[in-house]
Parts: sequence; structure tokens; C-alpha cells
Amino acid sequence: MAASIKVFGLPSSTDVARVLACLFEKDVEFQFIRADTYKKDHKSPEFLKLQDISGRVTFKEGKRTMTDSREICRYIADKFAEQGNKNLLGTGGLERASIEQWLQSEAKSFDPVASQLVFNLAFAVHMGLKPDNALVDQCEKKLNQILDVYDQRLGESCYLAGDEFTLADLSHLPNSHYLVTTEKGNELFYKRKNVQRWWHDISGRDTWKAVVRMQTEHPGPLEKFATIGNDHDYHDHHDHHDYE
Amino acid sequence: MAASIKVFGLPSSTDVARVLACLFEKDVEFQFIRADTYKKDHKSPEFLKLQDISGRVTFKEGKRTMTDSREICRYIADKFAEQGNKNLLGTGGLERASIEQWLQSEAKSFDPVASQLVFNLAFAVHMGLKPDNALVDQCEKKLNQILDVYDQRLGESCYLAGDEFTLADLSHLPNSHYLVTTEKGNELFYKRKNVQRWWHDISGRDTWKAVVRMQTEHPGPLEKFATIGNDHDYHDHHDHHDYE
Repeated sequence: MAASIKVFGLPSSTDVARVLACLFEKDVEFQFIRADTYKKDHKSPEFLKLQDISGRVTFKEGKRTMTDSREICRYIADKFAEQGNKNLLGTGGLERASIEQWLQSEAKSFDPVASQLVFNLAFAVHMGLKPDNALVDQCEKKLNQILDVYDQRLGESCYLAGDEFTLADLSHLPNSHYLVTTEKGNELFYKRKNVQRWWHDISGRDTWKAVVRMQTEHPGPLEKFATIGNDHDYHDHHDHHDYE
Repeated sequence: MAASIKVFGLPSSTDVARVLACLFEKDVEFQFIRADTYKKDHKSPEFLKLQDISGRVTFKEGKRTMTDSREICRYIADKFAEQGNKNLLGTGGLERASIEQWLQSEAKSFDPVASQLVFNLAFAVHMGLKPDNALVDQCEKKLNQILDVYDQRLGESCYLAGDEFTLADLSHLPNSHYLVTTEKGNELFYKRKNVQRWWHDISGRDTWKAVVRMQTEHPGPLEKFATIGNDHDYHDHHDHHDYE
């Protein structure tokens, strides 16, 4: 019997990782479909491609299709309110409002800046592109301001929306994970006592560690068969002729 | 750009493993699409399921669809004759005839007996089924006879069809790999000097080790999220309504 929930994508995509973390927190059964390309004569060392990180997620449940990772997380947390982690969307109206506020902060403030930094500091070089230093400086300044607010908030409560881990914290995991692998990003997180404590806590959750392990599993095990994931190619299946 | 060759299945399936080994030997670019189910509240340790091993393979190239792993291997070796390992189907008519003979031996004699042994010795117990001891004895006797012939042949040449590794040897890898994990199967292989040498040689190839690594990569990294691969479920996509 097929699981009724299907997720299409690559775990290295921040949007896919967000949805996987949520499904694991809610202890939901699902089917994960991924497509990986095994390249011929690919002798260069393997590294993540931009499309792996920015690749989209598709969530399917019967006739329902969703592609916005935060909407998908809200939907999962709502639909499976009574199983797994029951605090993801809070247990009262006030909590929910606070969670929504920090979810917005993640989507509208943190994510755009963090994504730009990850791209310019971690990926541009690998891809033979010049990082945009002016943009990096601008983003760094903005992220400093954002994290000052976070650090203050995390001095008042264990997590962003209160004393429980919620969707607001979870939603920050995928980009933060890449960000702390960069020198600048790491420094920005670790020079703030409360942000550091919070990051250490949320990134140490078993459910998130499960996602990270999925991200580091490379289906191309020979050096010469570097794997370049492509989360779009199985959308070919839209074309049912492909199966004739 | 999508790879024009697509393979659907789970690496743990012997048929899928056979095709992957061939694609790696021929250094062919392809896209591998897999679907894994993440179970809710699955606390028991992970182990391979019968459907993982006997799961079918689907090979697609444009409008071409093939599902017989040995036919797929022949097709790949023929089509990409000039790249990768050029000896897979031999370089002359006589060699090809010898390779075909041993391919037939694998498909018609070795595989049926090896599959039964693997099922009864390795999987029946895990699945709460009683192994069929009479069948095991019968298969063991047959395999002894088959391997006597192999051992004699492998005393005359390095590989089954001559002094080069060919599709005939490759085709034996997936079932042998499981067989030698069983006590009986291991004994049957290792008590024969030439079979032992041959197995050690062919199972040590980088291309096969790559397949084995794919087999042991579990996308369900939390103990509680045991992964039960299901190679049939993405065939749901036949139904294009699934994408609407």
C-alpha cells in the first residue's frame, strides 16, 4: 500500500529539508521520491549544486498538491495536530500568533538574507562565479540586525515563540545549517550567546539530524560518478507519454 | 537537461543492481529514480524486505521501455559498445557465443536456485515465515552441482566466458552478493578454490562496490523511521491525474 503523502525533491534543498523535518517531527508516514543523475566521466570532486539547495519541493496527498514549504509545514502540523510533536503550532491562540510572527520573520527577513549569504559565501566560488561582495556586506549587516533581535528574544525564552520548540524554530533549520558552514555565518551565530545555545539545541534534534543524514547520503558512491541531483527531472512524468 | 536514460527501482533489488552494475561498467550517464517509504512509529530494526530484493526494474530511454534486467544489460552493452568496459559482450563472435551461454546459465540455472536459497535462508525468518527445509536441501544440492561446473570452468579461465570480465560474470553479482551473506551460501562459494577466487575478483570491482554502497544507503536514518522501499509505488505516476 502506498503512503498517501508523497514528497518529491532532494533533501539538500532547503525547502525539501523543511518539509522532511516537519514530517519527522509529526511522525507522519510518507513516501519520498528522488531522482539523481549519475554522470559519465565525471572526475571532479562532488559538491552541492545550487539547484540542489534551491530546488523546489512538491507535496502530494491524493488530489492535493502544494509547493510552498512553509504552507506545507503548516498544513502537516494542523492536519496531524494529535500525533508526534504536538507543540509545533502551539496549543493556544496566543502561542499560535507568536509562532506565526516568527514564521513570518523567517520567511520574510531571515530567509532572503541567509540564502544570499549561503549562495555568495559557499556556492559562487565552486560554481566559478564571483561572489558579490557589496551584496555580502549588505546581507551581513542585515543579518547582524536580525540576529540581534533573535538573541534578545532567545534571552527571554528557550525558543523563538516561547519555551517549546515550534514550527518557527524548525523553519530556520535548513538555511541556518548551510549558513554555519561558512566562516562569516558561523561567526554571526556563535558570537551571540543565546543564538548559539538555541542553534545548538534545535540542530541537535534527532529529527533534524535525520534530515542532515539524508542530505549527506550521496547516491553516487564512486568518485567518478559524481551525483548531481536534479529535483525537476521527474516532473517529466507529468508527460504521461513518458510511460507509454 | 535530463539524462536520456532513466532507471526506476531500488538498488537492493537484484534486477536493479544488475542494471546499475552494467551502466557503471559502461560509464553511461543516467538518471536513477527511487521511492522510499518513511514509516510512522516503526520502532523495529530495519531489515531488507522481500520486495526490495525481488523488486522490478524499469528502464526508459525516450519511448523505449524495458523491464527484463538481462535484456537491459545486453541492450546497454550493445548500444554503448565503444565506451567504458568494451569487453562486456566480447569482441568477437565466438566470445559472444560463450558469454551468451553463461548468461543463459545464470538466468536459467543459477538465478532460480540462488533466489530460493536467499529467500529461505536469509529472509523467511525475518518475515516470520518458516523456511522450506526440503526446498533448501533440494536447492543446495542443485547449487552444488552448478558450482562444480563453475569451479571446473574457472580453473580453465579467469572468468566464465574467458580471460576477461564480461556480462556473464556481472550478471551473477546481485544474487551471489546476498547468497554469500548466508552461512550455507558462503560455504558453497568458499569451499571451491576457483569460485572463491572468481567471486573475490568480481565482487571487488569498483563498479560493483558502487552498487553495494547504493544498496546499503538507507534513506531512513532514524531507527524509528525504518525505510521500506517500494519500487512499485512511483508507477502510480502512470496515472497522470496524480500530477494534476
